Amino acid sequence: MSKQILILPGDGIGPEIMAEAVKVLEVANSKFNLGFELSFDDLGGAAYDRYGVPLADETLERARAADAILLGAVGGPKWDTIDPALRPERGLLKIRSELGLFGNLRPAILYPQLAQASTLKPEVVSGLDILIVRELTGGIYFGKPRERTTLENGERMAFDTLPYSESEVRRIAKVGFDMAMVRNKKLCSVDKANVLASSQLWREVVEEVAKDYPEVELSHMYVDNAAMQLVRAPKQFDVMVTDNMFGDILSDQASMLTGSIGMLPSASLDVNNKGMYEPCHGSAPDIAGQGIANPLATILSVSMMLRYSFAQVAAADAIEQAVSQVLDQGLRTGDILSEGCRKVGTVEMGDAVVAAL
Amino acid sequence: MSKQILILPGDGIGPEIMAEAVKVLEVANSKFNLGFELSFDDLGGAAYDRYGVPLADETLERARAADAILLGAVGGPKWDTIDPALRPERGLLKIRSELGLFGNLRPAILYPQLAQASTLKPEVVSGLDILIVRELTGGIYFGKPRERTTLENGERMAFDTLPYSESEVRRIAKVGFDMAMVRNKKLCSVDKANVLASSQLWREVVEEVAKDYPEVELSHMYVDNAAMQLVRAPKQFDVMVTDNMFGDILSDQASMLTGSIGMLPSASLDVNNKGMYEPCHGSAPDIAGQGIANPLATILSVSMMLRYSFAQVAAADAIEQAVSQVLDQGLRTGDILSEGCRKVGTVEMGDAVVAAL
Ligand SMILES: CC(C)[C@H](C(=O)O)[C@@H](O)C(=O)O
Ligand SMILES: CC(C)[C@H](C(=O)O)[C@@H](O)C(=O)O
Repeated sequence: MSKQILILPGDGIGPEIMAEAVKVLEVANSKFNLGFELSFDDLGGAAYDRYGVPLADETLERARAADAILLGAVGGPKWDTIDPALRPERGLLKIRSELGLFGNLRPAILYPQLAQASTLKPEVVSGLDILIVRELTGGIYFGKPRERTTLENGERMAFDTLPYSESEVRRIAKVGFDMAMVRNKKLCSVDKANVLASSQLWREVVEEVAKDYPEVELSHMYVDNAAMQLVRAPKQFDVMVTDNMFGDILSDQASMLTGSIGMLPSASLDVNNKGMYEPCHGSAPDIAGQGIANPLATILSVSMMLRYSFAQVAAADAIEQAVSQVLDQGLRTGDILSEGCRKVGTVEMGDAVVAAL
Repeated sequence: MSKQILILPGDGIGPEIMAEAVKVLEVANSKFNLGFELSFDDLGGAAYDRYGVPLADETLERARAADAILLGAVGGPKWDTIDPALRPERGLLKIRSELGLFGNLRPAILYPQLAQASTLKPEVVSGLDILIVRELTGGIYFGKPRERTTLENGERMAFDTLPYSESEVRRIAKVGFDMAMVRNKKLCSVDKANVLASSQLWREVVEEVAKDYPEVELSHMYVDNAAMQLVRAPKQFDVMVTDNMFGDILSDQASMLTGSIGMLPSASLDVNNKGMYEPCHGSAPDIAGQGIANPLATILSVSMMLRYSFAQVAAADAIEQAVSQVLDQGLRTGDILSEGCRKVGTVEMGDAVVAAL
């Protein structure tokens, strides 16, 4: 039976890096007989330009029908001044929410070939391999009420709501424990339970879920301390699980510890492991259209897709090995360039991965 | 006229480091004829043990009457299992809120003598001097409703509220701009305006306040990007202003960039620059009572107090110079020890600063 993959290149460098990822996906498709059928649509600014909204209903229907989604990146200055409700990132938030993609996996891995790219000392980050599990469809990102009002004295005021229910915490905690089980069996749950009511519930429920995972060593950490520890001694972490807002901050901080955010993929999964896969980096409008963007994070997102949504371990491994091989060959896009290496553009990098595959 | 200073040593290493800071304060008091009168009370776990609450009414009254407050640190495992409403940090949050200490100044300075303590490469952090201005009495820390409830289906749920009013944002923005004016005239306001309603108001009001500070170069940054940029290129920042929660996270991250959080003081100011001063680090219960804690952050908090609450610039400078001198002499507590330096304890370090003064 054929599998439907929906491709959403998005904005900025999105179309360029996606073109390379699609090449790799097509080679893997025939080589490993995956039976994938690809279709294409728009999200974010590209969707606004075409449909007048950052996520069209028909695109959402196609996404629902697909077996997996591959996304480039969304956003750019072109849409900075439009109605906030129609901005590119609203499309991203809507597709996450509508498809129930609550489980966001964000690895922060330091590739040995790129060790010098980090701003941290080699001994602090060499061998770094953290997985951040971020809750993606709840919390303050989607909590109601979210309002703009006026106080009696005429002052403007605005507020957001940070809600979490037991079942929301339980399902993301399970993802955290499941991931820890196939890794080094250490899970750190990050919250602010000394201040927030939602964090107190979070901690309580994580403790309950822990009973089903006696092999996993669970710790709790306040978010401010987690931000410190990621700088001080990041290798102390294996898997971290946290809420939507804290996960947004900590996963970006962790990815930057590697110095090569152009290498990091991510997955956003629903209860059935149907997922949307995308690079951790943004749409980089400043370098869009120049053919110099690093396509490897998007290519590695293809590998994550094969692994998590389709259990195609051999094909996923093959893509990761191909990427490692081109790094060994000394090929580098500008963002990860270092002395003694050969600078290549987006297409050449994609071609090299295809060749290695 | 005499000035009243309320001393709250707190918990853990608090009493030890405070004893040294008080010695320094008393020397400065007589040397510069400051006319300070010191009184002592408890906060946090120490207050719970003595009064049954982490901040007694009589302590709060004393704090209101004082011209400035010097705090050690609060918290420890001893009070981990008591009623959450009586935990040490509730005393800290209450004193901040009751005294209206909305303006939290958290410098992250890399002392040239301690450059090697950072986990970041020297070229990335040498000369680092950031000031984080954190809103301290509003936002999600104090927003109502904050509740624990049960859904119709019997599930537990909990929520917090993140409110900001125009006047709350305006007054902290002003602090940010004022600080930028006496520094390098660069202010970065950090928010999550692409997701939060409160952040949209925040950005709007910061823009309005900017009109009164044409000399300051203002930028806006999303909090996830700020966490990345603090790792990638922290020296791009001069002053950062942000809300209570983001400030909690980013100030801890920034302080750890220096590798020597035992050196960093902080101030929490009200509308009249009356303030509470405390080290950025916590109560470190693991090393309490051993006489090895670093008292310099608390001693530098005295200097900040002289500068911000009493405009005693000469005395403030003298204390900072004395601290720099003992570092030049090669004296180090364990937390900042490096090869070729002499390891000293808390008291010896305090004595050395007194001698240098
Ligand atoms: C674009 C933005 C809304 C989004 C988020 O905050 O989730 C992004 O920062 C991310 O982390 O995917
Ligand atoms: C102890 C805690 C409540 C406090 C805070 O979150 O504000 C602390 O982390 C700080 O930053 O002073």
